[in-house]
Amino acid sequence: MIIVIQCSDRVGLVGAIASALAKQQLNIITMREYVDKVENMFFMRLEVEEIEDVPGLETSIRAMLPKGALIIINPVPQKKIVVMVTKEYHCLADILVRNYFKTLGATVQCVIGNHAVLHDICKRFDMPFFLVPHEGKTKEEFEREISDIVLPFEPDYIVLAKFMRILSPSLVAKFPMRVINIHHSFLPAFIGANPYRQAFERGVKLIGATAHFVSNELDEGPIIAQQIIPANHSFTVTDMVKAGKEIETSVLAYALKMVFEDRVFVHKNKTVVFD
Amino acid sequence: MIIVIQCSDRVGLVGAIASALAKQQLNIITMREYVDKVENMFFMRLEVEEIEDVPGLETSIRAMLPKGALIIINPVPQKKIVVMVTKEYHCLADILVRNYFKTLGATVQCVIGNHAVLHDICKRFDMPFFLVPHEGKTKEEFEREISDIVLPFEPDYIVLAKFMRILSPSLVAKFPMRVINIHHSFLPAFIGANPYRQAFERGVKLIGATAHFVSNELDEGPIIAQQIIPANHSFTVTDMVKAGKEIETSVLAYALKMVFEDRVFVHKNKTVVFD
Amino acid sequence: MIIVIQCSDRVGLVGAIASALAKQQLNIITMREYVDKVENMFFMRLEVEEIEDVPGLETSIRAMLPKGALIIINPVPQKKIVVMVTKEYHCLADILVRNYFKTLGATVQCVIGNHAVLHDICKRFDMPFFLVPHEGKTKEEFEREISDIVLPFEPDYIVLAKFMRILSPSLVAKFPMRVINIHHSFLPAFIGANPYRQAFERGVKLIGATAHFVSNELDEGPIIAQQIIPANHSFTVTDMVKAGKEIETSVLAYALKMVFEDRVFVHKNKTVVFD
Amino acid sequence: MIIVIQCSDRVGLVGAIASALAKQQLNIITMREYVDKVENMFFMRLEVEEIEDVPGLETSIRAMLPKGALIIINPVPQKKIVVMVTKEYHCLADILVRNYFKTLGATVQCVIGNHAVLHDICKRFDMPFFLVPHEGKTKEEFEREISDIVLPFEPDYIVLAKFMRILSPSLVAKFPMRVINIHHSFLPAFIGANPYRQAFERGVKLIGATAHFVSNELDEGPIIAQQIIPANHSFTVTDMVKAGKEIETSVLAYALKMVFEDRVFVHKNKTVVFD
Repeated sequence: MIIVIQCSDRVGLVGAIASALAKQQLNIITMREYVDKVENMFFMRLEVEEIEDVPGLETSIRAMLPKGALIIINPVPQKKIVVMVTKEYHCLADILVRNYFKTLGATVQCVIGNHAVLHDICKRFDMPFFLVPHEGKTKEEFEREISDIVLPFEPDYIVLAKFMRILSPSLVAKFPMRVINIHHSFLPAFIGANPYRQAFERGVKLIGATAHFVSNELDEGPIIAQQIIPANHSFTVTDMVKAGKEIETSVLAYALKMVFEDRVFVHKNKTVVFD
Repeated sequence: MIIVIQCSDRVGLVGAIASALAKQQLNIITMREYVDKVENMFFMRLEVEEIEDVPGLETSIRAMLPKGALIIINPVPQKKIVVMVTKEYHCLADILVRNYFKTLGATVQCVIGNHAVLHDICKRFDMPFFLVPHEGKTKEEFEREISDIVLPFEPDYIVLAKFMRILSPSLVAKFPMRVINIHHSFLPAFIGANPYRQAFERGVKLIGATAHFVSNELDEGPIIAQQIIPANHSFTVTDMVKAGKEIETSVLAYALKMVFEDRVFVHKNKTVVFD
Repeated sequence: MIIVIQCSDRVGLVGAIASALAKQQLNIITMREYVDKVENMFFMRLEVEEIEDVPGLETSIRAMLPKGALIIINPVPQKKIVVMVTKEYHCLADILVRNYFKTLGATVQCVIGNHAVLHDICKRFDMPFFLVPHEGKTKEEFEREISDIVLPFEPDYIVLAKFMRILSPSLVAKFPMRVINIHHSFLPAFIGANPYRQAFERGVKLIGATAHFVSNELDEGPIIAQQIIPANHSFTVTDMVKAGKEIETSVLAYALKMVFEDRVFVHKNKTVVFD
Repeated sequence: MIIVIQCSDRVGLVGAIASALAKQQLNIITMREYVDKVENMFFMRLEVEEIEDVPGLETSIRAMLPKGALIIINPVPQKKIVVMVTKEYHCLADILVRNYFKTLGATVQCVIGNHAVLHDICKRFDMPFFLVPHEGKTKEEFEREISDIVLPFEPDYIVLAKFMRILSPSLVAKFPMRVINIHHSFLPAFIGANPYRQAFERGVKLIGATAHFVSNELDEGPIIAQQIIPANHSFTVTDMVKAGKEIETSVLAYALKMVFEDRVFVHKNKTVVFD
């Protein structure tokens, strides 16, 4: 069972938590902790053997911690997610395959696309696909439609798997630090549109991809994971896009694994990842 | 022997050059060519066996090529360089060691520092060190002093091995595409001062380093090579600096090797690197 | 159009080939050549604009080359492949997805499995799946069944996408350098069975995967590509297997791309890869 | 201050240790622990604030732990090392530079070489160099000379920085898990002599380097760190050697850093590295 703790730091927290566990005779299988000295924040992820009395344990841990501590004991192991896409298939297909073979660590509830091209691959996996075109609608109308589809599924996370529209702050605010995006550059380089075009113009020798939580600022949310792949002078923009897709798929898969296993903590605009 | 060619592209260039070589019975050991379709530029690097009649070969190749072609036959194999530093030792020490063991592919003429701390390591390698403090001088005076030291050495390249002052366009203009800098970030992310501080604030998961030619725009010259090293939430700014030094050393060494072996071509703001 | 040439080396080959192309007014888009000095072998891959007279070009090139030269002009662009699997899905699913979205660079004719578990994923992609169990059969019988299925498809390549049986030399001999395997280790370390168990016992800090052509010696054929992923002390054998799958998928995809684009040459037990 | 603990595992160890620390009002800055379930072993590295009563703390921790526990409180922060070399300079020069700039995390006491070529670089850093040729001596005589030089320095570690002679078990036994070697391959591939030649013959696409403790079995001791660098068909054995040197330097530097910061634990033939 997993225990996740995030609170302001003070002397003796590890000992206090460990003794609360010891009282219940709980054996610690793995423990990861980190203290952010600048922010005075304490982060801990524990894996322990079966817990018999969860409420009792939470009460006794909470008694040891500073006020306002985040304590999650036994977080839902199989997260529910909604995936949003536009036209590119690579991240979606990877998620659908892992979902089908039950190695995603989450369950995809449905896929929402603003284009129809990825409908068929979803159908092949018996995955509900909702087409929500954005043409001829205000952003408000477009996002209300999305909300109306998403909310009944009560997803733990929304995954933007190459969804090429920018969500408004009001929609993002409904899922704080629960919307995960894959950005096709090594953020903060090449923020915004056409990062591969920008990378090509600049003549970079590495192409990056960044998985991050979505906040209100475009491409500015907390970074979960980043990867790169070498490029060289012979790469056209198209070559960069192709090469980039391989790491977009890979870095998003990695970031989702970390999030779904409750290994990612968010504080202000940064993450702590116990990989 | 090396032959380097750069010119505008047209049909039949490879054949034309190859036949010019064949006339002199020259055997091609390696050939690398690249055509930039967007810029309509042709780049070629040849390694051939001993050339007996260099001027004759150049004439016969030039006759085959578009006007204004750059042709360098048998470029100086052992480049002369001047290294400029401030306080950090890692790139300089690596260069001094390779210079001492004759594996740098160039000969260091002297080191110029605006601080004295690296004087001793230079002395240990019998390397002339010129102290040029910048305090109490105008930029003009400071750079005139540097120029006065550099010019008599007639260096092929100036290497900024963690030299922390920005050179003025007028000084750079004296060495067009012959000043090489190591920038401690994955350009174009974190241009300018304190890139590690910026990277820390942004919470990046990779730290980068970029070796590039210096142009008039700060940190905007053609990129020769880039590398990254993983970072995580536990990295302080100091940790990032330390980790960064390892790849700064490594990426600068690699870029210098490429340049000194005449593998790097510059066109506009990009490089072609035949590695 | 692609031209592929492999022959013993002699002076003037590049010029001779280039002039044969020039006679037909063919423009070279890209040219890659390599001379293996030890083996005295010449390898070239050309990309040229539309060829009008293919037989004429071949005749004129052949006239220039040493006897026994391999010359392939305009190799079939969309290769036909048969995929063989056992129980693990990751490589197969990646191939099926790329095949479905027409980004594989080849067309999967069918999948053969010695277990039934991957039948369903094939069905979802309308991909013929042939179940050929090995139990209760001699190796000869088992392989005759496979041959009988494979041969009518006349595949260019057979891809062993985690097929866990060793093919006999007589079957491999029917497809010389046309059977591609993904081996779950950094060959030549951990040849044979249970490489992850071996890696775990040895306490390695990197896990590798190797895509290679199958020859008669187990895990000894020419290597096309290799990749690694970091491991640490906390990795169980299961963790290594999981981590390994990610790079197995990735390195096999890369190797197939290279092969299908006619970028891979084989000489004796090594490959030349013009990536 | 650092605390290092290694013992057989049982329930409640973390809590017990944490409460022993709490009794002394010690604040934990970082804690890393790992339980090897297969071996039933517990490993912990703590960084705590200033410890006033070290013997008292050790007594109270020891009371909590299984018999035979390894407990090191406040290990010597600046290790003493002896470096042994043959002819290649790259690892030695890197160590000398870091030693000179006090960033090695250890102090080099002397260098022993069985060839004289690296004498001069040592002299430049005022580093004692002992020439111990092996020619015309029995292994026993050769190693007795080495022992006689090494022992008076009482080094914490002996670093074989490209020392190309195999040490006998009897010499290694004097420094159990305190002799660190850099092997120029991705162990366990290419054990023994001429690994680059072996790698060349096999046509590998990656070159590796391995830093490991020396045990009695050749190239079989516990691995501390491994790195790779890409290779391709154009690499001669010499190119592989050159490329390999870059990662040999880098992986040895990394392994030494880990060891000198007391981040490496050894159990049987494996390491636990809290990086």
